Amino acid sequence: MPSVIALDAMGSDKAPKPEIEGALQAARHHGVRVLLVGPEPQLRAELARYPGAGRLPVDVVHASEVITMDDKVDAIRGKRDSSIRVGLRLVREGRAAGFVTAGNTGAAMATAKVVLGALPGVDRPALAAAFPTVNNTAAVLLDVGANVDCTANNLEQFAVMGDIYCRSIFGMKHPRVGLLSIGEEEGKGNNLTREAFQLLKRLPINFIGNVEGRDLYNGQVDVIVADGFVGNVALKTSEGVARLVRAVLKETLKATITRQVGALLSRNAFSDFKKRLDHTEYGGAPLLGIRGVCIITHGSSNTNAIKNAVRVAAEFAEGKVNEAIERELAELSVVVPT
Amino acid sequence: MPSVIALDAMGSDKAPKPEIEGALQAARHHGVRVLLVGPEPQLRAELARYPGAGRLPVDVVHASEVITMDDKVDAIRGKRDSSIRVGLRLVREGRAAGFVTAGNTGAAMATAKVVLGALPGVDRPALAAAFPTVNNTAAVLLDVGANVDCTANNLEQFAVMGDIYCRSIFGMKHPRVGLLSIGEEEGKGNNLTREAFQLLKRLPINFIGNVEGRDLYNGQVDVIVADGFVGNVALKTSEGVARLVRAVLKETLKATITRQVGALLSRNAFSDFKKRLDHTEYGGAPLLGIRGVCIITHGSSNTNAIKNAVRVAAEFAEGKVNEAIERELAELSVVVPT
Repeated sequence: MPSVIALDAMGSDKAPKPEIEGALQAARHHGVRVLLVGPEPQLRAELARYPGAGRLPVDVVHASEVITMDDKVDAIRGKRDSSIRVGLRLVREGRAAGFVTAGNTGAAMATAKVVLGALPGVDRPALAAAFPTVNNTAAVLLDVGANVDCTANNLEQFAVMGDIYCRSIFGMKHPRVGLLSIGEEEGKGNNLTREAFQLLKRLPINFIGNVEGRDLYNGQVDVIVADGFVGNVALKTSEGVARLVRAVLKETLKATITRQVGALLSRNAFSDFKKRLDHTEYGGAPLLGIRGVCIITHGSSNTNAIKNAVRVAAEFAEGKVNEAIERELAELSVVVPT
Repeated sequence: MPSVIALDAMGSDKAPKPEIEGALQAARHHGVRVLLVGPEPQLRAELARYPGAGRLPVDVVHASEVITMDDKVDAIRGKRDSSIRVGLRLVREGRAAGFVTAGNTGAAMATAKVVLGALPGVDRPALAAAFPTVNNTAAVLLDVGANVDCTANNLEQFAVMGDIYCRSIFGMKHPRVGLLSIGEEEGKGNNLTREAFQLLKRLPINFIGNVEGRDLYNGQVDVIVADGFVGNVALKTSEGVARLVRAVLKETLKATITRQVGALLSRNAFSDFKKRLDHTEYGGAPLLGIRGVCIITHGSSNTNAIKNAVRVAAEFAEGKVNEAIERELAELSVVVPT
């Protein structure tokens, strides 16, 4: 029986088009059953425009409200029938194995914590972002924003959850787990990371010690552990640098005719380049440690990004990632009481 | 009377060549008097190879020891006659107005704090890194590593010092000062930034509120305030992304003959691009808030980077940045006692 994934049809910047097409592709290519969550009349009308959509296991669940990217916490609480809340309720009620949204990250995290709750043994769920490295491998950074003030024990649990996620979803045998700090030696870092270092080194994982910001993309570490504030700064700084590079390259390549010809000839290289760095291949950011599966993708997600996120949500459910998190954290508390 | 700047001749990865050439160029083009600090016989022999060097105001001060990039704290303490310590002593004794090194950042900061001490009213000196933005303006991020665990009051002082630095060295009238956080609204961030926000908004500076990692390079903010751990992660993450971009572009541009031709034609664009992003133009990272001037540049600094750092050190001393920091922090403590 294939997994059922609830998909927020109203999340992305161009919703619901990428969601509808991503759902159809995930159903066609990966055999996932998808429940599109949003205003039913609109979604059914849109779906009807795709020939053959009726033969695919894609259905619609009605939600009358939409949370926007600009909605504040109060507005989010008020929208009891939002596509995010309705989608997460489907998971809680067992009608879906997982939920995917390209919508408001803060709203999705907060609602998932309330509607689904944390797994037994998990103090704080963490948002894990996957991205590409120089070696073309995937690396995972967590937490990237679910928790702004963390304890060393929180970071310890993030390390365990990140390790399991990498093994389950990226098929790595012994992911190298690093602690994001400022200096490689054991004594380097702030109070939080120095304390966390002592906890991480006694875990039954492949802990390689402190790593620095410049190691995120060098392929020498697979799981990078940070508190949600630091992780979020690292992730958004990366976006900022990428935008700067794009802007400067664009400008300098336009400066002369010769360069324009050169740029034309090398444009396939640039599209390859964009593809290599494309977050859409990595299936979004899962909120690890909640009861159920919740994957948040970028607001700019296209069809491919949505399709991959739906696929990963199904793999996440089928790979029994949550069962592993629950079991390994329980074992941990027996072996090394904290 | 031109400023005298002491320059660690043994700091950079290729020392002492970039230092000697940078010193000669700073003397020739900017009229700065430079004291090269390092092993005297070696430095005099090297200097003698540059025709005309004898007519420029570049001299040598002997230091028998060198701190390497790998030296641990204990080793650094033991090297009483290192080029870093001797150079900083020249500043303390008033024989030089400032000190420049491309050596071990941690060692330089720690030694500067001990040898020179903090300015009256400054609780914690902060390392300020300047970098380019999309608009071709400079932005300053501080602290990038002098203090790993900060209080809100520390961040408040960083804001004042960064504002003065931007006005004095980059000639900005009303630098836009932002607090590095994760979300733009006032309530967003961690305990530290939320507390600091309240202090920064009552300062007599152009405080624009929270900024995010992706704003660092977008030209919308001139001074970005962060604790040293977060600032260091942001800076090193940027380095990591830049390396990833370089590696991936290089690889993709080599893939076919057409692309190789394209890359050849557009290579001037790439060298422009490298130049635009080149940290060497920005004159290194000053340690703000100490008695004297201490500027730390990247270990990979070339002649141009050293020349610019020496020039900025002289401008720093002549612009009376420290007098302004002392005065404005004193005024602050009268107006808004903390």
